[in-house]
Amino acid sequence: MPPIYLRLADSLEAMIRNRSFRPGDRMPSVRQFSREQRVSIPTAMHAYATLETRGHIEARPKSGFYVCARLSDSIPELLPVPVAPRVSDLAHTDPLSLIRKYDYDPSKIPFGSAVPSPDLLPGLRLARVMSRVARRIGVNGGNYGPAEGPLILRREIARRSLAAGLNLTPDDLCITLGATEAIALALHAVCAPGDTVVVESPTFFGLLRQLRELGLKALPVPVDANEGIDLDALALALGKTRVSALLLIPNFHNPVGFAMSDRNKKELVRIAASRNLPIIEDDLFGDMVHQGTRPHTLKACDPTGTVILCSSYSKSVAPGYRVGYIAAGKWQERVLALKRVYTAGNPLLPALAVAEFLKDGGYDRFMRSFRESCRQQVAKMRDAIGYMFPGEIRLSRPVGGFVLWCELPVHVDSMDLFDSALKAGIVIAPGPFFSADGGFRNFIRINCGYPWSSRIERGLQTLGQLVREFSVRSSPAVRRSPSNQLK
Amino acid sequence: MPPIYLRLADSLEAMIRNRSFRPGDRMPSVRQFSREQRVSIPTAMHAYATLETRGHIEARPKSGFYVCARLSDSIPELLPVPVAPRVSDLAHTDPLSLIRKYDYDPSKIPFGSAVPSPDLLPGLRLARVMSRVARRIGVNGGNYGPAEGPLILRREIARRSLAAGLNLTPDDLCITLGATEAIALALHAVCAPGDTVVVESPTFFGLLRQLRELGLKALPVPVDANEGIDLDALALALGKTRVSALLLIPNFHNPVGFAMSDRNKKELVRIAASRNLPIIEDDLFGDMVHQGTRPHTLKACDPTGTVILCSSYSKSVAPGYRVGYIAAGKWQERVLALKRVYTAGNPLLPALAVAEFLKDGGYDRFMRSFRESCRQQVAKMRDAIGYMFPGEIRLSRPVGGFVLWCELPVHVDSMDLFDSALKAGIVIAPGPFFSADGGFRNFIRINCGYPWSSRIERGLQTLGQLVREFSVRSSPAVRRSPSNQLK
Repeated sequence: MPPIYLRLADSLEAMIRNRSFRPGDRMPSVRQFSREQRVSIPTAMHAYATLETRGHIEARPKSGFYVCARLSDSIPELLPVPVAPRVSDLAHTDPLSLIRKYDYDPSKIPFGSAVPSPDLLPGLRLARVMSRVARRIGVNGGNYGPAEGPLILRREIARRSLAAGLNLTPDDLCITLGATEAIALALHAVCAPGDTVVVESPTFFGLLRQLRELGLKALPVPVDANEGIDLDALALALGKTRVSALLLIPNFHNPVGFAMSDRNKKELVRIAASRNLPIIEDDLFGDMVHQGTRPHTLKACDPTGTVILCSSYSKSVAPGYRVGYIAAGKWQERVLALKRVYTAGNPLLPALAVAEFLKDGGYDRFMRSFRESCRQQVAKMRDAIGYMFPGEIRLSRPVGGFVLWCELPVHVDSMDLFDSALKAGIVIAPGPFFSADGGFRNFIRINCGYPWSSRIERGLQTLGQLVREFSVRSSPAVRRSPSNQLK
Repeated sequence: MPPIYLRLADSLEAMIRNRSFRPGDRMPSVRQFSREQRVSIPTAMHAYATLETRGHIEARPKSGFYVCARLSDSIPELLPVPVAPRVSDLAHTDPLSLIRKYDYDPSKIPFGSAVPSPDLLPGLRLARVMSRVARRIGVNGGNYGPAEGPLILRREIARRSLAAGLNLTPDDLCITLGATEAIALALHAVCAPGDTVVVESPTFFGLLRQLRELGLKALPVPVDANEGIDLDALALALGKTRVSALLLIPNFHNPVGFAMSDRNKKELVRIAASRNLPIIEDDLFGDMVHQGTRPHTLKACDPTGTVILCSSYSKSVAPGYRVGYIAAGKWQERVLALKRVYTAGNPLLPALAVAEFLKDGGYDRFMRSFRESCRQQVAKMRDAIGYMFPGEIRLSRPVGGFVLWCELPVHVDSMDLFDSALKAGIVIAPGPFFSADGGFRNFIRINCGYPWSSRIERGLQTLGQLVREFSVRSSPAVRRSPSNQLK
């Protein structure tokens, strides 16, 4: 149960969001609010201060609290982008090598990879935990760990599965090198080269790349910016094309940021189960809900073991420790056999360090502040984009995670924008990376993993300026070549 | 250049091995030897002490030094075991899950997995190095590393490639999760499911398991206990069967322990190159030469980039750090793309710790003593097996690494022996694990990775007793069932 002031702040925020209070409105005085809600003055003050921190209200001297004008609230939401339900062999460029080389490059503004600022993550703390564990286990710190990962780590993950609507046991889990290995193992377990896999359109480019390198094809299905994968389009596509699996990101989708409703999750699992199709669920961002409780996983709606849950502590604890996990249901034995011949087991000490961090409550404490950082950073970036980008854009409204998906004016080619931005020292992730067939040319994904700073602000300003220039330069009247044509 | 006393000891050892001095012979007195060799008395003493430590001579009070009777020298060497050149789909049991679960089980005598005693390895030292690195790089210790691995690690490995007859650059290398991932990536890069791969017979069960789980088939080619893979048999097999690659262990073969001669290596590379076949070279034990200089790799005989070198610091530094590497020649780009979607990169801190350990000379110092430990332990185990096992056995004579391959009396079924030994608290690796088609039923591999101790001695004694019992019980006269029939 959250404390009273937080529940009050949440209610007020909901009223601001649903326009019960509108930008410019004066809020009830603290005294009045405390009386109405039957709470103490300090509690009411605390609720208001929380709202202020969240950027919803502002104090004006000797006048009281007023609802802020939030430009981002007036940015139109994304519309679904239709996609031809056509199997793609994913033949275009390699986003992983193009973008990831700029991770942590101090000369670049980091809007590219979906990576939080190292300063936000408990890297130092975790290193100390690892040193302590190493001293404690002495010479055994160099030993092989078990292929399935240390029991104490699997036990901690199993305990936390309750929050995701599951009741996993340590035996249901295998530790992996991040979600990357988890998904590679899952694909390997349920597909053969040449098979086709359903993906969301758009979807994270890393997944598309995995399909490609493992010799698989993609069948893209469009998503709604709030509801997730279009279930009617999915059913239709499945009726027409033979596929081997679905590879989906139902919670805090990358790049769009939606979380599917429980109702849609149930329906999705039903559709897949009725065709005996495994769903590979990428729940990498699942713990990073912006407000309220963590959404349930697809796997929570799956009584038959056809959902393979893949997740990781790479985005939320330490990318470089490479500690992820897989709960593969009825494919668990096969996944374990594959893990043995893929990598033989995770490095022991990093896995034990993450286990210790989970066990002593460090992770849960950290996540409380990290979720709030994600929420604030995304909100701040949305607001700033509202000021800095041209009026014709559309923007996702993520409910978790820390990326934004932005539709630019229709004639802006984001691959060209990528090149120009890079020259200006800014890395972005262009839309075609997230498409099986080079679509989403006028979209970009923006990483909000870094706290707001004058450097981030300048970067976003420059990017907005570039978008403006491209939007004028590339408008049909001044187009130079038809090769920029949208697909 | 080794010190004089060591060169003298080596020469004397060679004379003992070639029977110039025979068991029971009196050695020249120290004074006489120093005069003959024109060295000081302390140097001569040092040479004799070294030979004594190696178990070749013993001091008898007031009488001088005598050549020891080494029972192991009278154990017959292995003969090549013919194998039907038949493609195998590798359908039998999973040795990885059967044996590896007893690694480090303190209640078991560790003759099973090829793992050195943690007490021999620099685990503590490496943990301290990792803590130091973590403190130095601060919050960045949690970051993603590059997919190809940290440059400083690749640079150290490249420098050491000179000793292996190579001149690799950092760009030729990709860091992997042990040799396991290196080999998985190599197989994935050059084979498609259903393809056939040449392996030595016998070969390390982990390789057979990788072929199986990746949907590949094996074509076994027999080995000579000293010369390695039978090149005539190989050429013959390649003429009859279409294969996609060769997966071989030319240096300190597991389980047989041979190192191929440079001449044979050149011829092997020629045979493969003439058919445009990639060779995947597992050089895991390459640094662990018992005496003299490290043998060259196959890749050193390969001007065309058709040899893919796979190796690791898992056996020689820290199994649990999972730091291996691959130099894939003309497949390097493909391997790197696969690494990105398999595991995205090694955990950063363990890789940096190994880099530091290599850089500051720790590895080279450590390897000098570790090689000698391997040599002594293997020699001691050979001697003890000479006492403790029945007379009809044959034994490999490894020139590097720390495993012995032992042919038991022909009717002993090593799978049954495995069960009985396990009940007695002893883990062994039975012969069929090392065979594509369940052959080598009367062979076992014995791990010599632990220093001699009364516990190891008792374990070996019990094992010898079991072999004796099996050898009597299973002799044709008292056989109970024909199901034990040799293939």
